[in-house]
Amino acid sequence: MLEAVEPMDAADPLRHFREEFVLREGLIYLDGNSLGALPKTTLERMQHTLSQEWGQGLISSWTEADWIEAPGRIADKIAPLIGAGAGEVVACDSTSVNIFKALSAALSLQSDRKIMLTEAGNFPTDAYMMQGLAKSGGAAYEFLAVPRDRILEALNDDVAVLLLTHVHYKTASMYDMAEVTRRAHEVGALVVWDLSHSTGAVEVDLNGANADFAVGCGYKYLNGGPGAPAFLYAAKRHHHAQPILSGWFGHARPFGFEEDYEAVAGIDRFQCGTPSILSMAALESGVDQLLRADPAAVRQKSISLSELLVKEMEPLCEEFGFVLASPTDPAQRGSHVAYSHPNAYAMVQALKARDVIGDFRTPDTIRFGITPLYLRFADMVGAVQRLRQVCEQREWERAEYQTLSAVT
Amino acid sequence: MLEAVEPMDAADPLRHFREEFVLREGLIYLDGNSLGALPKTTLERMQHTLSQEWGQGLISSWTEADWIEAPGRIADKIAPLIGAGAGEVVACDSTSVNIFKALSAALSLQSDRKIMLTEAGNFPTDAYMMQGLAKSGGAAYEFLAVPRDRILEALNDDVAVLLLTHVHYKTASMYDMAEVTRRAHEVGALVVWDLSHSTGAVEVDLNGANADFAVGCGYKYLNGGPGAPAFLYAAKRHHHAQPILSGWFGHARPFGFEEDYEAVAGIDRFQCGTPSILSMAALESGVDQLLRADPAAVRQKSISLSELLVKEMEPLCEEFGFVLASPTDPAQRGSHVAYSHPNAYAMVQALKARDVIGDFRTPDTIRFGITPLYLRFADMVGAVQRLRQVCEQREWERAEYQTLSAVT
Repeated sequence: MLEAVEPMDAADPLRHFREEFVLREGLIYLDGNSLGALPKTTLERMQHTLSQEWGQGLISSWTEADWIEAPGRIADKIAPLIGAGAGEVVACDSTSVNIFKALSAALSLQSDRKIMLTEAGNFPTDAYMMQGLAKSGGAAYEFLAVPRDRILEALNDDVAVLLLTHVHYKTASMYDMAEVTRRAHEVGALVVWDLSHSTGAVEVDLNGANADFAVGCGYKYLNGGPGAPAFLYAAKRHHHAQPILSGWFGHARPFGFEEDYEAVAGIDRFQCGTPSILSMAALESGVDQLLRADPAAVRQKSISLSELLVKEMEPLCEEFGFVLASPTDPAQRGSHVAYSHPNAYAMVQALKARDVIGDFRTPDTIRFGITPLYLRFADMVGAVQRLRQVCEQREWERAEYQTLSAVT
Repeated sequence: MLEAVEPMDAADPLRHFREEFVLREGLIYLDGNSLGALPKTTLERMQHTLSQEWGQGLISSWTEADWIEAPGRIADKIAPLIGAGAGEVVACDSTSVNIFKALSAALSLQSDRKIMLTEAGNFPTDAYMMQGLAKSGGAAYEFLAVPRDRILEALNDDVAVLLLTHVHYKTASMYDMAEVTRRAHEVGALVVWDLSHSTGAVEVDLNGANADFAVGCGYKYLNGGPGAPAFLYAAKRHHHAQPILSGWFGHARPFGFEEDYEAVAGIDRFQCGTPSILSMAALESGVDQLLRADPAAVRQKSISLSELLVKEMEPLCEEFGFVLASPTDPAQRGSHVAYSHPNAYAMVQALKARDVIGDFRTPDTIRFGITPLYLRFADMVGAVQRLRQVCEQREWERAEYQTLSAVT
């Protein structure tokens, strides 16, 4: 079976990217949608940023090594991956903090509307940030989560802002961004898209969809390192919104040390405090590498790998009770494939012992992340082979696989 | 003159620390209060975090390399530097974002009080974050900045929270933390202390002062790298406050992926998004090194260096019009010394050309940062000697020194 896919790997136009990453021999890493692998170029970049820029340049590097420009410079590199223009994206802070900024900016543009709407079962931090905002400021806002299939009917003229994750963190179900945005705009609601599981893996066209705001994650398909800075997109027409998180890096003249906050014109008003330069350097290195690949080829390979995985899994579904939890149509699926199984947790642990790293998501989901830059067709076949061994030999029943912790 | 201070450097109990930092020969770096120098151990630490923890360990490092514990672990190392107990500090996010968290937590504990009070001319981001909060949530709160000498009289039972920077970013004037806190508590106000220019340089005793909240900076005296994560302190009695920035890392069970936010018990509720591990690693390395020095010796050397600088500057004040802008009493002064001069900006540029790095602060301040771990008594004398040359040869008049930019 492994031999059968050799021609697919040989014909893969992205095959040379794998050697640009640090990946142990034998490891099948299907968790790049949780933490992307380390690009080898990042080691050099970090050495330079540490030794030369910080060590030698010291404070002067804020201007002489263009640290001060990093949030905008890196964002402008991310922009073409998400259909944004230059000056519409900024890279900084965590995804959670950027969700707060985008939500509060959207709310500031709405008057007399109370509802922040999202999908029940969306990634928790999205809901949590909405809940925190709803509790603040004298309960001016209301949090509402409804099931996925009732989002559109829940849109009405009380909805101030709709926050959705474009590709669902568990199932990989992908929204039609343009259609949902159009429906929200019809009732006067603004939309914040969470692109955490999209950016760098599926093609996104924010401006084509007439999107309002978006946030995304630097440590998944952008390979920016653990806890990498996130990014925020605001359509140009919304750049007059006043952020609540009005830190000095969003000021019109941060080094004027003025008494009163005056937001800078443009996207930089969504910056807040001093950016974390070491993390920004690693993020930029990851993005730089991704930009060397053709986005259409990345998406095509993601689909081909996913389809192969789904096909290879079919016999295991029949024999061992796995159920595909992702859409079967690749056009409606992001870049991971999820299965439900009553012993999902222990299966993931047992797979890890066989050097296949997937992800468990409570209560019963096994998630396989498909990262086209460094995965091979042989990895899909190999992962399923090893899962078959785990099942046939009932390795997941071992006591040590029942109680470990899992982290995304 | 340089020879005269040789015995002081020879007798310095901290003299061995200098060789632990990357510092160019000839450079006199008086800007460690803006960006601390690079500890050599940080190079090794980052290499390990990158190659081993990220490269080899990948997602497993969240638990196996204890990334998940980093915000608490590093904070517990910072705690003794600021008179906090274990479990009262968390390291994460930027200073600005942490100011927002501390302010909003303090406000959530106050009812029927409207005023957020601060000092006029405090570091801008402190005021800006208060202004953003005042504008949000239906103008429930009011921002008030008064001159330093009127802070105590402005305290009344309308004041919800007082935010002050312990050591002033320009003048280095240091508040009596215990006394100001006591006065604020007398009228029922809570206090947020900004320790950005204090931590690692002057002794701070938050619990001794009965402080409520504090924030501080990782990239100054903690030598955590450009834009290093900041920290937040909340006294144990305030750990029931609900943060507005309620991200998943502050949840009681972040990997339960539950629908509703439930803040974890304790200080970790002040975490928000995924922590930036590369920046956290550099911060920890900087803190680890500082902890090898006796805090009392650090403070004593800071005072001795500062007093020497002030003494050496006295003739230049008379001859060239510098005016000491910092307190003369070292007990009321933090770890930098400021002078005002009408040509401050050009002076700082001309000094830089002579390899003395100081800081300009608008409109007329020259700031010399005193970092006891890596500065020598000879550096104080040398810096003033070079400033004398700048003045005697009127080097600051050169056109190229008039229009560069300055960044903290």
